[in-house]
Amino acid sequence: MSEYAQIPMQFVGPLRVSGNTVQGEFEVPLATYETPLWPSVNRGARISMKCDEGIKCTVIDERMTRSVLFEAPDAGAALFALEQIKADFSELKTVVEGTSRFAKLIDLHSQIAGNLLFIRFEFTTGDASGHNMCTQAAEALMNRILEKQPDLKYGSISGNYCSDKKATAVNGILGRGKYVVAEILIPGKICRRFLKTEPHKIAELNIRKNLIGTLLAGGSRSANAHFANMLLGFYLATGQDAANIVEGSQGLTMAEVRGDDLYFSVTLPNLIMGTVGNGKGLDFVLENMARMGLTENREPGVNSRRLACLCAASVLCGELSLLAAQTNPGELMAAHRRIERGQ
Amino acid sequence: MSEYAQIPMQFVGPLRVSGNTVQGEFEVPLATYETPLWPSVNRGARISMKCDEGIKCTVIDERMTRSVLFEAPDAGAALFALEQIKADFSELKTVVEGTSRFAKLIDLHSQIAGNLLFIRFEFTTGDASGHNMCTQAAEALMNRILEKQPDLKYGSISGNYCSDKKATAVNGILGRGKYVVAEILIPGKICRRFLKTEPHKIAELNIRKNLIGTLLAGGSRSANAHFANMLLGFYLATGQDAANIVEGSQGLTMAEVRGDDLYFSVTLPNLIMGTVGNGKGLDFVLENMARMGLTENREPGVNSRRLACLCAASVLCGELSLLAAQTNPGELMAAHRRIERGQ
Amino acid sequence: MSEYAQIPMQFVGPLRVSGNTVQGEFEVPLATYETPLWPSVNRGARISMKCDEGIKCTVIDERMTRSVLFEAPDAGAALFALEQIKADFSELKTVVEGTSRFAKLIDLHSQIAGNLLFIRFEFTTGDASGHNMCTQAAEALMNRILEKQPDLKYGSISGNYCSDKKATAVNGILGRGKYVVAEILIPGKICRRFLKTEPHKIAELNIRKNLIGTLLAGGSRSANAHFANMLLGFYLATGQDAANIVEGSQGLTMAEVRGDDLYFSVTLPNLIMGTVGNGKGLDFVLENMARMGLTENREPGVNSRRLACLCAASVLCGELSLLAAQTNPGELMAAHRRIERGQ
Amino acid sequence: MSEYAQIPMQFVGPLRVSGNTVQGEFEVPLATYETPLWPSVNRGARISMKCDEGIKCTVIDERMTRSVLFEAPDAGAALFALEQIKADFSELKTVVEGTSRFAKLIDLHSQIAGNLLFIRFEFTTGDASGHNMCTQAAEALMNRILEKQPDLKYGSISGNYCSDKKATAVNGILGRGKYVVAEILIPGKICRRFLKTEPHKIAELNIRKNLIGTLLAGGSRSANAHFANMLLGFYLATGQDAANIVEGSQGLTMAEVRGDDLYFSVTLPNLIMGTVGNGKGLDFVLENMARMGLTENREPGVNSRRLACLCAASVLCGELSLLAAQTNPGELMAAHRRIERGQ
Repeated sequence: MSEYAQIPMQFVGPLRVSGNTVQGEFEVPLATYETPLWPSVNRGARISMKCDEGIKCTVIDERMTRSVLFEAPDAGAALFALEQIKADFSELKTVVEGTSRFAKLIDLHSQIAGNLLFIRFEFTTGDASGHNMCTQAAEALMNRILEKQPDLKYGSISGNYCSDKKATAVNGILGRGKYVVAEILIPGKICRRFLKTEPHKIAELNIRKNLIGTLLAGGSRSANAHFANMLLGFYLATGQDAANIVEGSQGLTMAEVRGDDLYFSVTLPNLIMGTVGNGKGLDFVLENMARMGLTENREPGVNSRRLACLCAASVLCGELSLLAAQTNPGELMAAHRRIERGQ
Repeated sequence: MSEYAQIPMQFVGPLRVSGNTVQGEFEVPLATYETPLWPSVNRGARISMKCDEGIKCTVIDERMTRSVLFEAPDAGAALFALEQIKADFSELKTVVEGTSRFAKLIDLHSQIAGNLLFIRFEFTTGDASGHNMCTQAAEALMNRILEKQPDLKYGSISGNYCSDKKATAVNGILGRGKYVVAEILIPGKICRRFLKTEPHKIAELNIRKNLIGTLLAGGSRSANAHFANMLLGFYLATGQDAANIVEGSQGLTMAEVRGDDLYFSVTLPNLIMGTVGNGKGLDFVLENMARMGLTENREPGVNSRRLACLCAASVLCGELSLLAAQTNPGELMAAHRRIERGQ
Repeated sequence: MSEYAQIPMQFVGPLRVSGNTVQGEFEVPLATYETPLWPSVNRGARISMKCDEGIKCTVIDERMTRSVLFEAPDAGAALFALEQIKADFSELKTVVEGTSRFAKLIDLHSQIAGNLLFIRFEFTTGDASGHNMCTQAAEALMNRILEKQPDLKYGSISGNYCSDKKATAVNGILGRGKYVVAEILIPGKICRRFLKTEPHKIAELNIRKNLIGTLLAGGSRSANAHFANMLLGFYLATGQDAANIVEGSQGLTMAEVRGDDLYFSVTLPNLIMGTVGNGKGLDFVLENMARMGLTENREPGVNSRRLACLCAASVLCGELSLLAAQTNPGELMAAHRRIERGQ
Repeated sequence: MSEYAQIPMQFVGPLRVSGNTVQGEFEVPLATYETPLWPSVNRGARISMKCDEGIKCTVIDERMTRSVLFEAPDAGAALFALEQIKADFSELKTVVEGTSRFAKLIDLHSQIAGNLLFIRFEFTTGDASGHNMCTQAAEALMNRILEKQPDLKYGSISGNYCSDKKATAVNGILGRGKYVVAEILIPGKICRRFLKTEPHKIAELNIRKNLIGTLLAGGSRSANAHFANMLLGFYLATGQDAANIVEGSQGLTMAEVRGDDLYFSVTLPNLIMGTVGNGKGLDFVLENMARMGLTENREPGVNSRRLACLCAASVLCGELSLLAAQTNPGELMAAHRRIERGQ
């Protein structure tokens, strides 16, 4: 039998990308069973090439996390231990440095619930997405803490306050993964010609569908049409752990009329991805990374931030194209019929 | 360049499965870059073989949805139109039957927000996951409604109240996809021997980590350790649109001590998957489906319900194994190190 | 010592209200320790008097709920019992009629989680908010069900899937309390003259603050500036159980420029309130109800729907006024300083 | 007409309270239209008197917040400004000190969404709940920032990322108000005698109803039976702004069997309350505060922390009593009938 699931893959683009992290024109690979995704992202990419600055990408933050769980006799003891752990922060940084060349402890947050103490350790992890690096660091941190705090008992190496591969609020609020904003300013005539719609129609649809519709559905820190589709395609094609699209897809689309132009942006606070680690050594992944210029030797973290920018730009392209389509009755289904019959 | 992303794939199992939808022993395929997933699910599978009934799977419900968005002059007009649309339900059923052999309209729900009317149509879709079938049906429904309700204007073919590939509450509350519960009763000695832990430790960890930890993280209708991992692997290996793991991973793990035994269950209300449609014609997918006995000619819907049961059973296996590991300090990281070095 | 907490109370208005439930001009009472609320709501009320139709109020739905919890041996047994309970719906209606003159069972929804069965019974309750009426009905329903379903065991008379006095998604999606939309169309010049701002500024602020800001905060089915303030004041002044402002305050403000006008609406899906029941016999409550014309003998339910409309209209007034103030730097704090010094 | 809403009020207790913030036996006032609340809380209070340490209260954290909203040209400019604002933190502290004797800036958090910058300022506010103090400080901070960051424009003095009187996740994760845990260890025989139930029944019900039931309902950082009821009563009786029960009621009940005992705790991360400010000068409030020993001259913050502990202890009493009642079929409704007829 097959040793590999084979997911159809294509490069789309080029996309024009700017910002202080990565500039230029790039083709990006998307692997998906839902092949109408390619022309959809391509349409957005075409728009980016018509706009002077293309898609401006800004990396706001980056960190990777693991929350450990301790049991204390009561809340008072949990608080006492927490205060000591905070006071020992610089020692804990040293503990982490002993576990990996790349992991650095940068912050911690906590929750006390009854007699339980959750500590969410926050790290930078170089070019790796960092799941294992953080677990390893968290293990060392727990061991040190358990030695020094006799009142605490091991609860769990992961207390779900991390929070990995779950749609939660904590990741967006405290940060997990790369936090990227991608923005574009589209002249009205480009919008009309290539997206077959008006700036104000996209702005209005974004409010009604993405903001209000998702709110009514009981969404969680999320207002977008289909981030998950582009993320899945990009994650699979670049050797990422695509289960992280769960939190990756919690993000926000904004669309605003500015004069005759359309301001359109996607905010993705939780892009957990890297250029090294599991999956990155597969031939097609190396090939894809090389084609995006991400195999060059750069300072740790630079390649993965560039990757996150290209990912966010791809998300913008697909999001823009779908929203444009949905402003016109009948267009979405017609496109699906045309593309799927065509194959 | 490659035309396919190649995701490492293995069969795990056999799992023993019972319930009124599917019975027997099955191997299930999982495609993933995170290969420690295989031994983890395998450990759970081994447990299922030691338990008389294995994993009992129950399909609670199934439906697929698309919410359309109309604009009315005001809330009063939206309400008036809604009442008429509800009164026309049987006519709308007929409209849907004209769009596909398999799609059947079974219910509708609505939201009125200011002057906006969202209608969430609910369908059965045979053995397909049904995304396109529903969009097509929704388009026909919108057209009919717009003809008959002159006060309404087209808003969007999808109003995000569906809700597709987003973590929301509506899917769990109103239903979307297959709603499956998988359960197992594990004798204490099996638990101790193969999971190296005690029933009460798993029950306690489940409360503290999955229920309380996820709550503190601001999770949404979700309390589990890592459903997303097993879902991703299973979805990719069976040609599913894996972007649906976003809502698929919103589910609940329960663990309870019963006498000397451990009752362990996973509740997955949103398994959007099928045995026909995009991705299902790829050779390796056909092979995998055949190996699970899902290519036989059965009444529409039966194969896809069986598939959902096998998926839920796989989720249970991986969830059980990880929770067991996390009850023991050091076990999780040791396993990762052992497996990843071994490769 | 005092037998009463004495909360400062004033009537504000008149408000002009239209719609098919209640029409006319009304003063409404608000009890609050935060007395700047009165002039704020008053400013909105003044606007309503300048607009021909005033505030249009539409009651979309009404129902009150109680969810009971049963324990089954497993999910299969829970499903089997659920199917029988649904088949017995008309008998269950009769059971409910035996418990009260006013309670009527109108629908039920359910959740199965592992071996647990939650049934959410939905009732109309005449002019009462209906908490006790529903508990009493639910008790009778449980007893009947437990007699007929030997596999089920009592879990709880309330399983929190109701959901009472908690911010959840279920109430908005399935309904609980009065679901009211209040809308107003404000001419640009009225907006400029009395609210000291432009329609587009309010529309923009509403998107950025109420929709996007609340989303970032991890809000749940909520996008408003301060519904809770007006609700608290109105609930206390009319003898309501003000703990229900928890879910009552989950609602949506919309603001849109239409030509030179501002369309402004508040959507309140969960107004749990009545004109009879606990608190309604107190002298000042009777007085207040009389002044709003809600002590007349009308068909059961009419007075409470009118009350909900007046409440929603009051919410609109306060919401409009605060948003207008926040479009202008410095205005909010200046108003607070002026008013609080003035007292 | 009346100048006051008159809410029936009673003292319940005494409760026995311990912990490092406040110790002793206290009666606490509750104002409510739902008078069955009094005997319910009283039952819990009686339990506290039978337990040596009574109810242990721990204040984990305290802060009050206001989030301001700026508009930047794009995300890059927003990030640049944010970095400068963070670098100016000590200057911003000085700005705040100029606005009030009590307000101190202790931290800030931020969100960037597209071109919008939300900054959540966090303060201590002495014995006041601090709404106005924070708004005033935020205004001064905005003015200073707008002077120094020419790229930023005023968006709103409140951007809903605060988040005031809304059920969100941010308050629990970043803190807002007093964060209090109240715990009690109840001997099995006390549980059986006074609560008419077994420890394991309360523990099991808490999991099924509060944790699982609320999760299914789509709750947000919340797992309790009726915190809102006790909070409303306590807030009204002590002159608090009871609209803050919206976020105050987002909290967690835990119940665990320990040997023959029941460990029971309530975690309330968002108690926004004070002993000075609006409402605190009313005669009955002064009387109530005095009776709880909260009018003595103490270091700023001490009285309000004590108040929060007494509030949390009252919540524990009512929560314990209701859960105990719901373990027994028929008890809840019988109690309501008995009490309401009795009046």
